[in-house]
Amino acid sequence: MLYTYDHLKDLSEKALGNLNLPDEAGALFEPVRYTLSAGGKRIRPVLTLMACNIFTDKIDHAVLPAAGFEIFHNFTLVHDDIMDNAAVRRNLPAVHVKWNLNQAILSGDVMAFIANSCFLHLPPEQFLPAFKIYNQTAVEVCIGQQLDMDFEKLVTVSESEYLRMIELKTAVLLSGCLRTGALIGGAGQKEINLLGEMGKNLGLAFQIQDDLLDVYSEPGKFGKAKGGDIISGKKTFLLVKAMELATGNKLKILQSLINDRSYDPGGKISTVTEIYDSLDIKSISEKKAEEYISSAMDNLENLSVPAERKSELRAFAESLARRST
Amino acid sequence: MLYTYDHLKDLSEKALGNLNLPDEAGALFEPVRYTLSAGGKRIRPVLTLMACNIFTDKIDHAVLPAAGFEIFHNFTLVHDDIMDNAAVRRNLPAVHVKWNLNQAILSGDVMAFIANSCFLHLPPEQFLPAFKIYNQTAVEVCIGQQLDMDFEKLVTVSESEYLRMIELKTAVLLSGCLRTGALIGGAGQKEINLLGEMGKNLGLAFQIQDDLLDVYSEPGKFGKAKGGDIISGKKTFLLVKAMELATGNKLKILQSLINDRSYDPGGKISTVTEIYDSLDIKSISEKKAEEYISSAMDNLENLSVPAERKSELRAFAESLARRST
Repeated sequence: MLYTYDHLKDLSEKALGNLNLPDEAGALFEPVRYTLSAGGKRIRPVLTLMACNIFTDKIDHAVLPAAGFEIFHNFTLVHDDIMDNAAVRRNLPAVHVKWNLNQAILSGDVMAFIANSCFLHLPPEQFLPAFKIYNQTAVEVCIGQQLDMDFEKLVTVSESEYLRMIELKTAVLLSGCLRTGALIGGAGQKEINLLGEMGKNLGLAFQIQDDLLDVYSEPGKFGKAKGGDIISGKKTFLLVKAMELATGNKLKILQSLINDRSYDPGGKISTVTEIYDSLDIKSISEKKAEEYISSAMDNLENLSVPAERKSELRAFAESLARRST
Repeated sequence: MLYTYDHLKDLSEKALGNLNLPDEAGALFEPVRYTLSAGGKRIRPVLTLMACNIFTDKIDHAVLPAAGFEIFHNFTLVHDDIMDNAAVRRNLPAVHVKWNLNQAILSGDVMAFIANSCFLHLPPEQFLPAFKIYNQTAVEVCIGQQLDMDFEKLVTVSESEYLRMIELKTAVLLSGCLRTGALIGGAGQKEINLLGEMGKNLGLAFQIQDDLLDVYSEPGKFGKAKGGDIISGKKTFLLVKAMELATGNKLKILQSLINDRSYDPGGKISTVTEIYDSLDIKSISEKKAEEYISSAMDNLENLSVPAERKSELRAFAESLARRST
């Protein structure tokens, strides 16, 4: 049988809520609980479990590794929010704001080791390959964050450089979730690889949408401060594309505005958004995301299991493609 | 045959120097190489290898896990130096000073995953138990750092609270190294436990000596700025003991000075050192460290292997007991 998104999300929430955290040093684990209980769509654990469920009805062994990927993801968010100087996460104060810098560093650190521990119950012959996928993914996510930080110092980033960055920072993690779930579910290497490709395409689409939502989401719906990427001069797909297409005065405005943090934030958002609109950036970006979603669906199509085993993952991937939050 | 300290240190250096780091994002790995090449006595990998070598002459499999413990240790140093606002490490600028805060966070993070990867080559039946020891140790070190930070907000810390903190922050790691080395060497559970106890005792002695060296080392010999613990008001064994023994005016001076960061640093060091001297804190601390060294030697004595297999570890532990740097 296939489990629904709601059921798998619920399993993930329970695993995250029932972690066996040490009793000592409450101050260390309070931000961990705060971060893990802040909700979200639980995309990563749900993907892990759905991939497992494609190949088997017995998904119990995949629940903790699924939670491990979510804990890793939240570890990166806690540290990224420091590095990006972001004050709000999921409509709540970021850990370094609610507590302080040191607490955010250390509570983030311990989350990485808690994530490790989520793989330790696997039978040894699964633990090794599953943990290899997980750990390789974790290194790549760090590389992606580094490229993202490197980009801050550049005026111009090419589309391919940008896509490589989000592949590492965002897409490999969804790929790792799907591959690990499939592995624990008993899939063969060919199926694991196909789902890995699907995850990568889904992740690329997802990040481009994230970039879109920063500018074009309905007010109050998106969990981050609107226009934050524009204010901070972050290299997003929208900005990279606009810098590629803009000429003359528009290009000059973009180039001078991007790294000008003294500019009035509201004015900066509206000026940049007007340039985006004039260059049709919204529909160009939507089209690019759509291409990746389509590739992801092709990867799933090519998976040699009965079509009915794919229905939940297909529906979930489609819902991500249409997300507005 | 038993390998010498010099040989095992050399093996550790080579493993650390030949890590297979990714080619991408050089800025991420530059601080990693900088940190790992800064030297030091390589206590943790050498302990890992010596414990393995007690039980077998074939120590090849233990070299990378030994390096993993050293990488983990250096990961904690990179992040601790941020949290402690320490500018110098092993006579070199700390990573957050030489680069910046964000780089120190992220390069530290990736070191945790590089450390993980150092266990992945072990045969599956050793990987699981070895990684369990490693990961439990890592969580405990984070708890120890938390307690250390919690102590900053307290005026008084008891000796037992202090000892529990350094057990977690410092001693469990040496314990984990010895246990992991023994496990990979094929030791039984009883031997693993005994070496674990030895590591804990050695670690407690080591940290008390570290506290002593901050105040009483020969100028220029210790790799950190002298008196740094006094200036920052850090709860060391010396301070904890002095607060316990001081009365009247001395106690008042200690209580008011500890958290006064505006006080002239040189004056603070000499005032506190004079109080330490008047209370005989140096010999009290040395005696305490000596007790732990003695317990560590008893643990080693009780190990049921031929005495000649223990000679290198015994000599190394004794050299640590007499260290001046």
